[in-house]
Amino acid sequence: MAETRTPDANRRSERSRRAIYDAALALVTEVGYTRTTIEGIAARAGVGKQTIYRWWPSKAAVLLEAFLDLVAAAEPANPADPAATTGPAEAAFPDTGDLEADLKTVLRASVDQLTDPRYEGPTRALTAAGIVDERVGAEFLVKLLDPGLRLYGERLRSAQATGDADPSIDPRIATELFVGPLLHRWLLRTLPLTHDYTDRLVEYALHGLRPRG
Amino acid sequence: MAETRTPDANRRSERSRRAIYDAALALVTEVGYTRTTIEGIAARAGVGKQTIYRWWPSKAAVLLEAFLDLVAAAEPANPADPAATTGPAEAAFPDTGDLEADLKTVLRASVDQLTDPRYEGPTRALTAAGIVDERVGAEFLVKLLDPGLRLYGERLRSAQATGDADPSIDPRIATELFVGPLLHRWLLRTLPLTHDYTDRLVEYALHGLRPRG
Repeated sequence: MAETRTPDANRRSERSRRAIYDAALALVTEVGYTRTTIEGIAARAGVGKQTIYRWWPSKAAVLLEAFLDLVAAAEPANPADPAATTGPAEAAFPDTGDLEADLKTVLRASVDQLTDPRYEGPTRALTAAGIVDERVGAEFLVKLLDPGLRLYGERLRSAQATGDADPSIDPRIATELFVGPLLHRWLLRTLPLTHDYTDRLVEYALHGLRPRG
Repeated sequence: MAETRTPDANRRSERSRRAIYDAALALVTEVGYTRTTIEGIAARAGVGKQTIYRWWPSKAAVLLEAFLDLVAAAEPANPADPAATTGPAEAAFPDTGDLEADLKTVLRASVDQLTDPRYEGPTRALTAAGIVDERVGAEFLVKLLDPGLRLYGERLRSAQATGDADPSIDPRIATELFVGPLLHRWLLRTLPLTHDYTDRLVEYALHGLRPRG
């Protein structure tokens, strides 16, 4: 509701902010988005709930910021993460001139992040919340997901410019050939998420499934 | 807990069973998996909760069966649905000899089903439940998701046998190039789910993103 989504950094102590982030991420992992409340976050962080209400307009805003902070701390930056963000320090998609190698690098980093227990719980909880709640999903899409997807699109356009990718493909649809299978396997826990798996995804998507030669 | 997951059809009236299915699917759509209870389903269906406990061992079992019934009623059968099943009447993946056409047919049917309001709510609710709850996810995976994924794998293997697909590809990973992007776009509501989109997915996956010719 409020216009100011960014809390006034001058008015909050770093310690309280950190405690609120930690409490928010722990709670959403343990009880899910629906049952996470401002009151619950405040109690767990050891702050008054008015402290939270003063700095953030809503539960979604606290969680979004806590998650942005978590992802921003991740190295390397990971545009394939379903909840990835360019973050405060703009993440870059590698461009070594070798599209296949660059895609493999990014997807391997995604595997590492998605299987890291620090990220897995909150990422699952927030993704699940967005799946059933269109408003929550839209907010997370704009702030968390779209920036990462755009980086793929830019890298694919650069590959089209250098003749490394077919100029007729739509980079946005092509992006989903990489991030879609990863999300499917991770979210639905169909099979293990490994570097070997994502390497093959890249090869299949780039070279196609039709017989070659 | 109980061994019998299939209720004794002779002991329940079709009318009660239908009312319980409808109540279970409506409730999970409205309040989500966590807050759906046997008591709530019974109240909404107008039956005693002992009726439900007599026929199903758990909330998950009721929902799973209600959802299987819903999907089985769908025409055409839809192996790309994240919650699709071969159902009581075994669904078949079309095999006209034209792999590209067959994949497009199946994915178009998936688009129609996933955007049908009767399926969308329960499918989202159950998918979200499985994402955060590993036990629920595992049950839905085995009963709902894997049968559909296997149909893709079989069709791709048949294409390998006829020289329509590269014999070196892993059909299971290749399957995810089709179902993964669809799930990504639908679950995260990134962009509209259209037939034109899925047609392009099939073309990109089959022919690859590298320059041709």
